[in-house]
Amino acid sequence: MGPFAGGRLPAAHPLIDGRTAGSPLVLAARRQPVPHTPVWFMRQAGRSLPEYRALRAGTAMLESCFTTDLVVEITLQPVRRYGVDAAIFFSDIVVPLKAIGVDLDIVQGVGPVVKEPFRSPADLGRLRDLTSDDVLPVLAAVTELTKELGGTPLIGFAGAPFTLASYLVEGGPSRDHAHTKALMYGAPDVWHALLEKLAGIAGEFLRQQVLAGASAVQLFDSWVGALPARDYREYVQPHSAKVLAAVADLDVPRIHFGVGTGELLVDMRDAGADVVGVDFRVPLGEAARRVGNEVALQGNLDPAALFAGPEAVEARVREVLSDAEDLSGHIFNLGHGVLPSTDPDVLHRVVDLVHEITLR
Amino acid sequence: MGPFAGGRLPAAHPLIDGRTAGSPLVLAARRQPVPHTPVWFMRQAGRSLPEYRALRAGTAMLESCFTTDLVVEITLQPVRRYGVDAAIFFSDIVVPLKAIGVDLDIVQGVGPVVKEPFRSPADLGRLRDLTSDDVLPVLAAVTELTKELGGTPLIGFAGAPFTLASYLVEGGPSRDHAHTKALMYGAPDVWHALLEKLAGIAGEFLRQQVLAGASAVQLFDSWVGALPARDYREYVQPHSAKVLAAVADLDVPRIHFGVGTGELLVDMRDAGADVVGVDFRVPLGEAARRVGNEVALQGNLDPAALFAGPEAVEARVREVLSDAEDLSGHIFNLGHGVLPSTDPDVLHRVVDLVHEITLR
Repeated sequence: MGPFAGGRLPAAHPLIDGRTAGSPLVLAARRQPVPHTPVWFMRQAGRSLPEYRALRAGTAMLESCFTTDLVVEITLQPVRRYGVDAAIFFSDIVVPLKAIGVDLDIVQGVGPVVKEPFRSPADLGRLRDLTSDDVLPVLAAVTELTKELGGTPLIGFAGAPFTLASYLVEGGPSRDHAHTKALMYGAPDVWHALLEKLAGIAGEFLRQQVLAGASAVQLFDSWVGALPARDYREYVQPHSAKVLAAVADLDVPRIHFGVGTGELLVDMRDAGADVVGVDFRVPLGEAARRVGNEVALQGNLDPAALFAGPEAVEARVREVLSDAEDLSGHIFNLGHGVLPSTDPDVLHRVVDLVHEITLR
Repeated sequence: MGPFAGGRLPAAHPLIDGRTAGSPLVLAARRQPVPHTPVWFMRQAGRSLPEYRALRAGTAMLESCFTTDLVVEITLQPVRRYGVDAAIFFSDIVVPLKAIGVDLDIVQGVGPVVKEPFRSPADLGRLRDLTSDDVLPVLAAVTELTKELGGTPLIGFAGAPFTLASYLVEGGPSRDHAHTKALMYGAPDVWHALLEKLAGIAGEFLRQQVLAGASAVQLFDSWVGALPARDYREYVQPHSAKVLAAVADLDVPRIHFGVGTGELLVDMRDAGADVVGVDFRVPLGEAARRVGNEVALQGNLDPAALFAGPEAVEARVREVLSDAEDLSGHIFNLGHGVLPSTDPDVLHRVVDLVHEITLR
């Protein structure tokens, strides 16, 4: 990335009007000098916060995701409490699918459940293109958040085609992705047509979020670590690349993350990431050896380590920062989402530690 | 490994009396020329076989594991049906823990559930050493199987200390291993004491199986892929090494496998494996580049690919065999256990394909 071209961003966009272009998160993503290492947490909005549970009480998950005021408030809660360097709007990766009419719900303790799984060519007809009209309450939240957040960048996000396809094909969360892989290996034409459609939906959703004020985006391919690299390149990478290309002309930092993707880091970089998210299994120094210095890295404290007591937590925060010492750009994060039973005070302490230790 | 010393094996052991020393499985594990590539499947005994479901009807899982006749029959079923090159006795990795009195059960659809999870130093007192008296029905099954199987080697097995500890500490299966890692990172002295005990139990169990007639062993560290390599080396490897060392003087091939362990293959080899099991995420040629030619490799057809239709299955079998072409020793297997809904006819066809394609 060169200096922000931003020709297509509105003049009032926070990356253009001076609010977030100099923020630690955007600087680190652009591999420029930072006052301190920026830190945020995947799934920081919702889950472990008591003020979130109080606010959500009585409202179903998906309903919350389409209720502007709730999205705004839940997104702001961790920013206020922890002083993180970025907000990520409260949502779920199946929201754009729900928005175009796929019959699905998020079931407590299970995850997304799709009423009629997608397994035949005819099912492709059940997907249509997404337009901004489909996600107006979400975009209204992004606009509102951009005002409230001031100099703190808002990260937009979407689920990547493989992970969305896995939910659609399995009908819900899966350990083995057997139906998904059966379709992928057994009917590659149908597979590619499905992922092409999902890439269009995810790309348009990301683009609308950026136009509404997001200063960065993260593409989550949560489950793609279930594939070997050569299958990733053949069946997934072109579609993820299409999603990331959908915001390329907006010159906004693009983060790309999946769980257990040590074998895929180079190929996920090549899909068009400016920042590669690394899970906790690969130390950041090793990840940098794999992907080189042309991208920044995000990660990678093990969220399970947050339960090990203050001394162990501090030791492991220092370990991550030490691993990151020679990176050209580092965004501190967990190596996976916040676990629901995490103590918010521990997360707060991690933010303070990262800021204290890396203050320049 | 040199030629079988076997000084400590009974003269009637199938590795000594000529029955299995020349079997394709043992030859491949010892990186010697084979008539064809040997093939077996993790979890081939039980699960997807209708004759297994009929036999097990009305008997709880753990009760079956301690009933000699059932273990023998269930173990033989896939050998008869598929013509695989090895049997692995029907059991579960928590069997030795049950045998020494840990209050646990295997719950249908969940997995092992430990009544009171292990989380404090006091809990260490709930583990004692295992002796052959604790597992007599299992050892009787091994002895009986060794007679029934003739030239087909029986693979003995045990769960590795990390995976056993994960069940004990979490109280059951876990996605994130949060309690386990909290103990490991937060109370390393307790952790090491726990794994030391588990290593003693697993090592003795393996040794007893070999003395009773097993011609190879597999140490399953199912969940250790949840750790980065440096933590594996610090918190796990010494204990897994102790288990594998417990049968070193018996000169029996030792296979070591875990899911998602691409980052750990070298360290798992160094724990004392003669054969490193590789999951489906890393092609065998790449795995060989990591571990070198001093060990054989086992793997690694994706069990989910078995649902993709006959043409795709054949293509992927050929891909695995092509990946394995330059290995010094290859045992064909899945890259994870057989999924319960797998069609037995597909597994049968895979065995035939591997034999046909690799016949020398």
